[in-house]
Amino acid sequence: MKIKILTLFPEMFNGFINESIIKRAIDKGICEIECVDIRDYSLEKHHHVDDTPCGGGAGMVLAVDVVVRALRANTNEKSHVIMMTPQGEKYSQKKAYELREYEELVILCGHYEGFDERIRSFVDEEISIGDFVLTGGEIPAMAISDSIIRLLDSAIREESHEDDSFSNGLLEYPQYTRPIDFEGMRVPDVLLSGNHKEIAKFRRKEALRKTYLKRPELLDNYEFSEEDKKLMKEIMEEVK
Amino acid sequence: MKIKILTLFPEMFNGFINESIIKRAIDKGICEIECVDIRDYSLEKHHHVDDTPCGGGAGMVLAVDVVVRALRANTNEKSHVIMMTPQGEKYSQKKAYELREYEELVILCGHYEGFDERIRSFVDEEISIGDFVLTGGEIPAMAISDSIIRLLDSAIREESHEDDSFSNGLLEYPQYTRPIDFEGMRVPDVLLSGNHKEIAKFRRKEALRKTYLKRPELLDNYEFSEEDKKLMKEIMEEVK
Repeated sequence: MKIKILTLFPEMFNGFINESIIKRAIDKGICEIECVDIRDYSLEKHHHVDDTPCGGGAGMVLAVDVVVRALRANTNEKSHVIMMTPQGEKYSQKKAYELREYEELVILCGHYEGFDERIRSFVDEEISIGDFVLTGGEIPAMAISDSIIRLLDSAIREESHEDDSFSNGLLEYPQYTRPIDFEGMRVPDVLLSGNHKEIAKFRRKEALRKTYLKRPELLDNYEFSEEDKKLMKEIMEEVK
Repeated sequence: MKIKILTLFPEMFNGFINESIIKRAIDKGICEIECVDIRDYSLEKHHHVDDTPCGGGAGMVLAVDVVVRALRANTNEKSHVIMMTPQGEKYSQKKAYELREYEELVILCGHYEGFDERIRSFVDEEISIGDFVLTGGEIPAMAISDSIIRLLDSAIREESHEDDSFSNGLLEYPQYTRPIDFEGMRVPDVLLSGNHKEIAKFRRKEALRKTYLKRPELLDNYEFSEEDKKLMKEIMEEVK
């Protein structure tokens, strides 16, 4: 997969590209990330990319002509163009699985106070990572790239993500590691028992319990197995 | 405000800290960001910070003793400790306003497959930026830091954020800038009219329309003025 990021701040991505799983995926050739500076597509002497808003008001607005020039120079018929904006569709793990299928993603990061509304006509979809306002689309672009590359990378390593939060419709079960006793807080005995059936049951039950207590609305779309139903009954008794 | 970020990948933050509004806020002394490497608090010769999960399974689990040592060395009675995890409370613009009031935020980033459940007992709150899985808490930590610092910075510049998406309960109205005509797509005439009353009305109406079409649930908690009600009536007629 190729990911092109169109941004006014390409250097913000240096740390992201050079660390951890992303770097490993790039080194392995699983993905390629290219940061394109929108400023390079300004025809102005001083490389201005924004202007005052029509109708007045504070702030500067990213101009449609510069952005469209950058988009046209960096897309082809295979490109899927995403714009990061708080008004877009809410990002989710399901969307990450969907986007992982594209050969080339082009991610347009807005910045500053706003961008010309007409830019929306030139993108395939608008995505938001949540109901909060950031200085730009750079951090959201890292977030979605990370979530997608992580899936590509483990596909190669034939790892399973079925225990990830949200992937099976539940929050992830609690994990523990050494020390067994930390200041009186002990790892649950069952995890030390070596009884794989009991361990699996414990994890299932605790994943259900966490989801029920923290994110009950996730259970609305969850398909309970017969065993899940029994475990839920126990949980309801216990939390009473 | 001081923000301390506890992470296994401090260098991921280089681009974030050195760009744009964040750098300006740091240079002005509005905020200070310190990245602390959790690895420095491992007592192991090889600075291991994780171990295999009790009860078996894939992946490595971040150990409670190392993290608690890092937390204790980097907090005082003023610190508000946040852990970034997909199981936390959903982040929102309201939360950004809330967190901006703290003198010192300590943000703990998990990484890898998971962390020891007992770590949760040592933090004040758990925050999630959305229902998707990332390789770690670093990008979410940038997201919340950015959203908070942005509010601090403009407080200093006495700027208003009331037009931001979500800040007044609506999505932001559409913005335009030159060129007036871009390949046949024109800036709406009203914005070029110089009639401030009509411009304000247009923006209000378009903010309501966008919110109604894209995020109708936001209107459930919105307090409509008499003028808003009239505009909504027009919108309902128009979208029929």
